[in-house]
Amino acid sequence: MTRPISPAAGQPKGRRPLGSLIWAGLSLMLLTGALATRSAGADTHTDDGYRLWLRYVPVQGEWLERYRRSVSELIAANARGPAARAPAALSPTLRVAQAELVRGLTGLLGTTPPLAPDVTRDGAIVFGTPASSALVRRLPLALSRVGDEGYIIRSVAIAGHRATVIAGNTDIGVLYGAFRFLRLMQTRAPLEHLDIASSPRIRRRVLDHWDNLDGTVERGYAGDSLWKWDSLPEHLSPRYADYARACASIGINGAVLNNVNASPFILTPLYLRKVAALAGVFRPYGIRVYLSVPFSAPVTLGKLSSADPLDPKVRAWWAAKVAQIYRDIPDFGGFLMKANSEGQPGPEDYGRTQAQGADMLAQALAAHGGILMWRAFVYSTGAHSEDRARQAYDTFKPLDGRFADNVLVQVKNGPIDFQPREPFHPLFGAMPHTNLMLELEVTKEYLGQQTSFVYLGPLFEEVLRADTWARGAGSTVARVIDGSLYGERLTAIAGVANIGSDRNWCGSIFNQANWYVFGRMAWNPDLSARAIAAEWVKMTFTSDPRFVQPVVRLMMGSREAAVDYMTPLGLASQMAAGTHFGPGPWVAPGKGMPPDWSSTYYSRADAAGIGFDRTASGSDAVAQYSPHVAAEFSHLATCPEDLLLWFHHLPWDYRLRSGRTLWESLVLHYDRGVAWVQQARGTWRGLSRYVDPERYRLTADFLAIQQKDAQWWRDASIAYFQSISHRPLPAGVAPPPDTLAHYEAFCIPYVEGSPGAGPACPPADVSVPR
Amino acid sequence: MTRPISPAAGQPKGRRPLGSLIWAGLSLMLLTGALATRSAGADTHTDDGYRLWLRYVPVQGEWLERYRRSVSELIAANARGPAARAPAALSPTLRVAQAELVRGLTGLLGTTPPLAPDVTRDGAIVFGTPASSALVRRLPLALSRVGDEGYIIRSVAIAGHRATVIAGNTDIGVLYGAFRFLRLMQTRAPLEHLDIASSPRIRRRVLDHWDNLDGTVERGYAGDSLWKWDSLPEHLSPRYADYARACASIGINGAVLNNVNASPFILTPLYLRKVAALAGVFRPYGIRVYLSVPFSAPVTLGKLSSADPLDPKVRAWWAAKVAQIYRDIPDFGGFLMKANSEGQPGPEDYGRTQAQGADMLAQALAAHGGILMWRAFVYSTGAHSEDRARQAYDTFKPLDGRFADNVLVQVKNGPIDFQPREPFHPLFGAMPHTNLMLELEVTKEYLGQQTSFVYLGPLFEEVLRADTWARGAGSTVARVIDGSLYGERLTAIAGVANIGSDRNWCGSIFNQANWYVFGRMAWNPDLSARAIAAEWVKMTFTSDPRFVQPVVRLMMGSREAAVDYMTPLGLASQMAAGTHFGPGPWVAPGKGMPPDWSSTYYSRADAAGIGFDRTASGSDAVAQYSPHVAAEFSHLATCPEDLLLWFHHLPWDYRLRSGRTLWESLVLHYDRGVAWVQQARGTWRGLSRYVDPERYRLTADFLAIQQKDAQWWRDASIAYFQSISHRPLPAGVAPPPDTLAHYEAFCIPYVEGSPGAGPACPPADVSVPR
Repeated sequence: MTRPISPAAGQPKGRRPLGSLIWAGLSLMLLTGALATRSAGADTHTDDGYRLWLRYVPVQGEWLERYRRSVSELIAANARGPAARAPAALSPTLRVAQAELVRGLTGLLGTTPPLAPDVTRDGAIVFGTPASSALVRRLPLALSRVGDEGYIIRSVAIAGHRATVIAGNTDIGVLYGAFRFLRLMQTRAPLEHLDIASSPRIRRRVLDHWDNLDGTVERGYAGDSLWKWDSLPEHLSPRYADYARACASIGINGAVLNNVNASPFILTPLYLRKVAALAGVFRPYGIRVYLSVPFSAPVTLGKLSSADPLDPKVRAWWAAKVAQIYRDIPDFGGFLMKANSEGQPGPEDYGRTQAQGADMLAQALAAHGGILMWRAFVYSTGAHSEDRARQAYDTFKPLDGRFADNVLVQVKNGPIDFQPREPFHPLFGAMPHTNLMLELEVTKEYLGQQTSFVYLGPLFEEVLRADTWARGAGSTVARVIDGSLYGERLTAIAGVANIGSDRNWCGSIFNQANWYVFGRMAWNPDLSARAIAAEWVKMTFTSDPRFVQPVVRLMMGSREAAVDYMTPLGLASQMAAGTHFGPGPWVAPGKGMPPDWSSTYYSRADAAGIGFDRTASGSDAVAQYSPHVAAEFSHLATCPEDLLLWFHHLPWDYRLRSGRTLWESLVLHYDRGVAWVQQARGTWRGLSRYVDPERYRLTADFLAIQQKDAQWWRDASIAYFQSISHRPLPAGVAPPPDTLAHYEAFCIPYVEGSPGAGPACPPADVSVPR
Repeated sequence: MTRPISPAAGQPKGRRPLGSLIWAGLSLMLLTGALATRSAGADTHTDDGYRLWLRYVPVQGEWLERYRRSVSELIAANARGPAARAPAALSPTLRVAQAELVRGLTGLLGTTPPLAPDVTRDGAIVFGTPASSALVRRLPLALSRVGDEGYIIRSVAIAGHRATVIAGNTDIGVLYGAFRFLRLMQTRAPLEHLDIASSPRIRRRVLDHWDNLDGTVERGYAGDSLWKWDSLPEHLSPRYADYARACASIGINGAVLNNVNASPFILTPLYLRKVAALAGVFRPYGIRVYLSVPFSAPVTLGKLSSADPLDPKVRAWWAAKVAQIYRDIPDFGGFLMKANSEGQPGPEDYGRTQAQGADMLAQALAAHGGILMWRAFVYSTGAHSEDRARQAYDTFKPLDGRFADNVLVQVKNGPIDFQPREPFHPLFGAMPHTNLMLELEVTKEYLGQQTSFVYLGPLFEEVLRADTWARGAGSTVARVIDGSLYGERLTAIAGVANIGSDRNWCGSIFNQANWYVFGRMAWNPDLSARAIAAEWVKMTFTSDPRFVQPVVRLMMGSREAAVDYMTPLGLASQMAAGTHFGPGPWVAPGKGMPPDWSSTYYSRADAAGIGFDRTASGSDAVAQYSPHVAAEFSHLATCPEDLLLWFHHLPWDYRLRSGRTLWESLVLHYDRGVAWVQQARGTWRGLSRYVDPERYRLTADFLAIQQKDAQWWRDASIAYFQSISHRPLPAGVAPPPDTLAHYEAFCIPYVEGSPGAGPACPPADVSVPR
């Protein structure tokens, strides 16, 4: 199809003349807000997705009446307070909060609420801190219980009028409360009788950007880096603030700006000026910047002869570098370190432990209040090849208690590498004397990347709710990382960001939901994936239940569908080498392919059966879990079937609980995954009237791509495994239309997110699989 | 500075509800057009630059009255014609033309002109071809003189009413005419008594995209590739049509989709499906797709043992591949080839000439009407190092007359590589029996890249007007490439595109002018850079002369300023290695740096003097020009001073016409360049009230960056050359604030546009030059 004219070009945006270049501040907010209202209508405007879940489209009908009664005027955050001056005297964060309320309420209600110095009528919205607002100070809110980032939203009476107060102990708490209040309206929650108190369960809620300084993004599927290094620090793209605003709206309070495979250049004066400029943009939104650094920087950058963490010259170099950073960025967050992993340098190069390496940096950072996030994702490619799943535990468990208070050991959700399904990482619960943080991958490296519709909420929920049994039942991963199990004071969670320069930020509309759910679960790991999906759908599209219900159902089923057509029953790492896109179950060690990067290493498929024996008869990785969990995984009777082949090598004719053989079940899982995508396409087609054309089309086209990819996964996997199992297909199952040789010859050479790596395969003049 | 709220996010766009997902077609055009009008006002709306020069903001005041009298109704392109059916029966191109007129007129006039089947009042706009419209057919327009891409716009009387007709022999001519008509209004030209006939002087007006299949763009400074290969062919981003529309508006009719350093994967079925999808989007806009192909494809892709152009198997492979392409893309344009250059394979690998290599591909393409663009930019890195400027001529001149009719030899404007200033390429005029096309670089690889304000119109004009004297005075490069000098029927011009995924397409607003001027000069190489600048400014910003005049003056001076602070007096290739950004006059051969990639090879600065002797006493490259030109360049008395050091090695104390020594002049040129940038910043600051805040800010910030860069260029260059000249600075000239060692140690490791190359220098912990 072609579009004779694209509606994205050529139209003036909905703005009124400003007559001046000074465009920040309240007056603009009012103007643009008013216009937004005037030119807005239903939820089906053409939309390029830029606004994410902060669309603030007008409320209609009965809800509009209700909300107008609850929101009639906005009381300045410095109302009658000791600092009662012009709004410009507000702190940058309170200014942001006020602007967001004006923008949001104007959009939602269709009129700009007047900004008043005091409550004059029913429906007043009062916001601020006890320090900024005398009105807030006078209310008995018991704010101390929500800590230094939390907020309270409560229906109160002030001067005989109904009012709603949005209060925090700190300015950032107020901003979080403002976003929450707007979310209530975006999701059509009642505003009467509010009594909400909320504070984050985890202190550091961080996005890890794997952005390279050359503008590419490792495993990024949404264009290139948001950070335009070339024009920083002089030019501050409006996107920087928009990014920070979106993050703050879901409670994210940190950003690691650069790839864990770090360039030493990030620590040069040239780049630190740029980092400081970004930190300045993010500061009002409560977001600290962090940096990934290479362990070898004292050598490559400092021209020292060694990076040995016990060498005083090395320690002095780091101390000076950290001090230099804090001079320009007083609230700098700290470092993220990937050491001795996948070729990166590290303390083991000098015969030192990971803890000794961490200690050097931790000391340098502690002097300024900085923290160190030290990744447990440690392995030497090709070494320890008997079971890579063991390596992080084997390396770190003996070091428990050896890390400083300002260090967090950052542990991926599973023991391998962000697969569609893994069991939880055995380090969780196993290091009671160490701050452990969780690393999730928000970018869908192994889950269909840009185009596939995969909502990660269920995956995140699965790991957060996984019970380590470290202190008996209920010792969930969530309780390990929020500090409630072992009492750590420094707690953190990281998500590898899926954000890039694409207009819609994440490459697809539904990928935005993964950014959203990461932030929401980081704030409260007990929230359900389903509830978060519902609120995201309402904010991003419409509150119409005829749309919300089927779409939430799609979202909730989407990850299991991807597991089904990619790596069912506990399989893992069956993707094409390099790109991690598309099937590559035949990828075998040799010719530069280390065993633990190959697919056959993980599937262990042979004439006898399939699966990786990690029980006592195999690698015994299962022994890394607490005894209760180890027993559950070890025994076939109790091992969850969706992790079966992760822990067990089983005969092709092994009977699953369904009565079907393993081989039959495997095939049926692939088919089920494909069928899900086909059904999803139909569901989405039926919902077109609730969605604007641009976002409808993008999603529909991407589902078409996903169906093709799912079919390819299914056909190639069945063709490959059948060549090993030599079993017939179950009755009624269609054979793959191409030969195994054809699937092996076909390859996608380039995908976004593998910058500079060159093509993943030699060119082959073969047709696209049917 | 931080912006508490960025206005780019959170506002609904100015659209009305559609109530349906079917959004192409006229009704939407009318709706969005109407709304665009309603929400538009002055020219100072916040604008992210996406709309380029096709903004169609409302005309104000007296012009509005005038234009409304001239434009009262639009007569359908199939008015009373034999094909008079519903608008849907129009050809895709006429539909695009009609939609553009509706969109443009609605925006400009503030009301949507009614679409009528026949002329009913004064001010009718009639458009179409004789085939589509009976009204057009009946008018005595003498259309034959405008050929198959031209148009006529004329004020006529129809049925007793004043009318304006926009007519072409072909649908694409009508589309070009429609854009021209709208441009008249955008630039405030009278619409009364129109009698315009225009047709392109050059047949193939092509943008070369150096886009890699991994999404990066070589020498691209505007984000990554526009082509989202991962989601093609299923998803057609709205940007594809917007790109085509912008190209068509300036007459560009071809696009080479991929980098001349070509990947063989582009020829696989996987990618050809994607290419076909793009071709389908571009087709209604008159744009053909072309591909860059690697000479070695028969080996790498076809698994043949050789790519020898005389090998029948190789010829058969190419013939089959070309046939495969034409099956899916019947109007495929042809190939672009970079052979035996910078490590690329080519016919010389098999002992064949460039002509023999070209002939093989030309034959394969000729069978389907395709053409071959064969680059003359041929050199082996490090070989022929006595003077690289000689190599293309030495290679190609002997082959004159040996290229098939459907081959164009594509020659860069100068003999080296897109430097800020080069003399015209000696091949122009020297191959009377060969189709020569001109290759310009629209992306500013050597001219400050994304951030510097450099309008390339004067550079393009300089080469087009350069007189080769091949057939006596007046044998300009323009007349070589438009075929009027030697009578070629196949003519072409290429521009290396500066277009990427950045929201504003080109990385900066003023870079958009370079895309624009390329298209306009490709249509008519006699247009002046100044006139084109003026029309671009009016369309892109405002027609207010208080803005237009100073900005055109800035644009016209900008390229010479860059020459001044980078490479004055005929210097060239003094940029940092690899990135080509920032000064690197000290870059010397050795350590993997081939002589002809070094700076000292080109400056030849030594204690005695500076400059490259290309006269008979040196490399004698000057003898490659026609005798008249060679004499002019050879003699110091006639050699233009701005090319002095290109052709001559001169003592530091050589006196220029000004009476100053060469050394003094060199220093003063650097200073003049810096001063220009400083003045430009002041000029721009004074114009803020005419520009929306977003585009104002971007340009102001980029000028700040440019001033810093210009100063760096000036300081580093003076520090370096003074270390060789050992001359004092002229009186009153400030010495560089840092030492030469400091400048040599400082380096920008990464810039956009050098994908996968790794850092351009080792990390150095030195401060940014002052």
